[in-house]
Amino acid sequence: MTANTNTIWLNGELVPASEARIDPADRGFLLGDGIFETMLARHGRVAFLDAHLLRLMRGADAIGLALPLDPTRIAMACTALLDANGLAEAPRAALRLTLTRGPGPRGLALPPEPAPTLMIAAAIATPPPAGLSAIVAMPRRNNRSPSAQLKAIAYLDNVLAKEEARARGAEEALMLDIEGHLACASAANVFVWENDRLITPSGDCGILAGITRAAILELAPGLGLETVEDRIDLTRLLHIEGAFLTNSLTGIVPLTRLDGRALPVHPMTARLAAAYELLLDAADRNN
Amino acid sequence: MTANTNTIWLNGELVPASEARIDPADRGFLLGDGIFETMLARHGRVAFLDAHLLRLMRGADAIGLALPLDPTRIAMACTALLDANGLAEAPRAALRLTLTRGPGPRGLALPPEPAPTLMIAAAIATPPPAGLSAIVAMPRRNNRSPSAQLKAIAYLDNVLAKEEARARGAEEALMLDIEGHLACASAANVFVWENDRLITPSGDCGILAGITRAAILELAPGLGLETVEDRIDLTRLLHIEGAFLTNSLTGIVPLTRLDGRALPVHPMTARLAAAYELLLDAADRNN
Repeated sequence: MTANTNTIWLNGELVPASEARIDPADRGFLLGDGIFETMLARHGRVAFLDAHLLRLMRGADAIGLALPLDPTRIAMACTALLDANGLAEAPRAALRLTLTRGPGPRGLALPPEPAPTLMIAAAIATPPPAGLSAIVAMPRRNNRSPSAQLKAIAYLDNVLAKEEARARGAEEALMLDIEGHLACASAANVFVWENDRLITPSGDCGILAGITRAAILELAPGLGLETVEDRIDLTRLLHIEGAFLTNSLTGIVPLTRLDGRALPVHPMTARLAAAYELLLDAADRNN
Repeated sequence: MTANTNTIWLNGELVPASEARIDPADRGFLLGDGIFETMLARHGRVAFLDAHLLRLMRGADAIGLALPLDPTRIAMACTALLDANGLAEAPRAALRLTLTRGPGPRGLALPPEPAPTLMIAAAIATPPPAGLSAIVAMPRRNNRSPSAQLKAIAYLDNVLAKEEARARGAEEALMLDIEGHLACASAANVFVWENDRLITPSGDCGILAGITRAAILELAPGLGLETVEDRIDLTRLLHIEGAFLTNSLTGIVPLTRLDGRALPVHPMTARLAAAYELLLDAADRNN
């Protein structure tokens, strides 16, 4: 079966994407009132599926939304969707799960009887790039916002940061928090090397607690690496010995250039990436 | 003709809302990649229509989006929509115009050939409340975010602030900026009375520059009132002599209670509200 990613899963049904209908009164569309997950599927198995579903449940809970389907059935829906799109055997596919508060009357007040929208879409995932150039972008992450710590739909600042990167001749955008500490990339967490230690922005820097980020923090000590979750200001960023981005779809991707300056790829990065691949394989076997 | 708000205007056509379809790949739905306007129509005339269309154009420009329709035609669409919904003679109707970057491929990068979504929905507007109770809510406004200064779709923090107000027995939520200065309410600007002067949060406090806010700042001097755009911290907020909210739909609404403390309605508030009504009438005649 060839990949033909034209089918989405919407509120319990597999539907041709061209016929699938989001209600114009959906609060996801009108207010960004929802959350999402982006997941990597390898040969039909969703990497770290439990962790994604747990984060989804916690996010839904944080915004006062009940999951319309239990996690086991969501997992089944992912499998059915990969099948329907001819991606069951694909080495790499991307799943995007979107959960919104669904349609509601005008205004911000929560609808008395919410009918959440749950949608899953699948696509072939391209191989991750070997390295990326980045700039430090203008938009700042809000470290005093509940939604900034959730995988909330509100990605306009990140879209603008990414576009700023393109306009300035780079591929990725790093974002700072309001106080000027490094937070994240437009759709990834970031790690930097400093005196051979691995530093990543701490939870109070307006970051989303990424699943790959957590995996790296778990793996690193086994490779003899010291890790620190910390606030990293621009002065420190000027002196880093290397950096990489992490997200669920692309794993570990080195930053090879930052604000025009070439960044070396730290020798331990490849070992971490290899360990991460082994972890993915092990997680598949336990699925 | 009776009001029957079942028709929306979507990308150039009047469509029954029950049949109107937002594409599941719409970036407004997936990424909050869009902006909106909420407008008051009185007897078929949209109040401050030019100001709304100007803000829409500026917002679109700020996010690198071309308006898919020129402003004159958008104005005509508003009229046609009010007609189609039996609201041409309604004393008060609400129009919500939503502009998104439309459907696109996966990821944050701007689509090479964007096909923006432009939607307008109409509803009967209920009369504004005589007064509102409010609390100071947890979520903070981001004063270093481009999207926080736009009427961007990302309203989840505001939804959560409003729900926090409800849970704490109040009707509205005031939001502070990251540094702790008063910013706005969940969907309104805020003015406070201090030594008989009218103070409103300045542009650097994570506010949206409201159209009613601008009108009040213009009207006040003619009533002998001194106005100041300023940073207002919590200590100052404890000592205010009154406050009111402004937005396009509800005009001026006094805050009668803040964090459990009764707030008097400043005697000049009614005179300002009357002057604002006259301004609306005058604007109608010039339309």
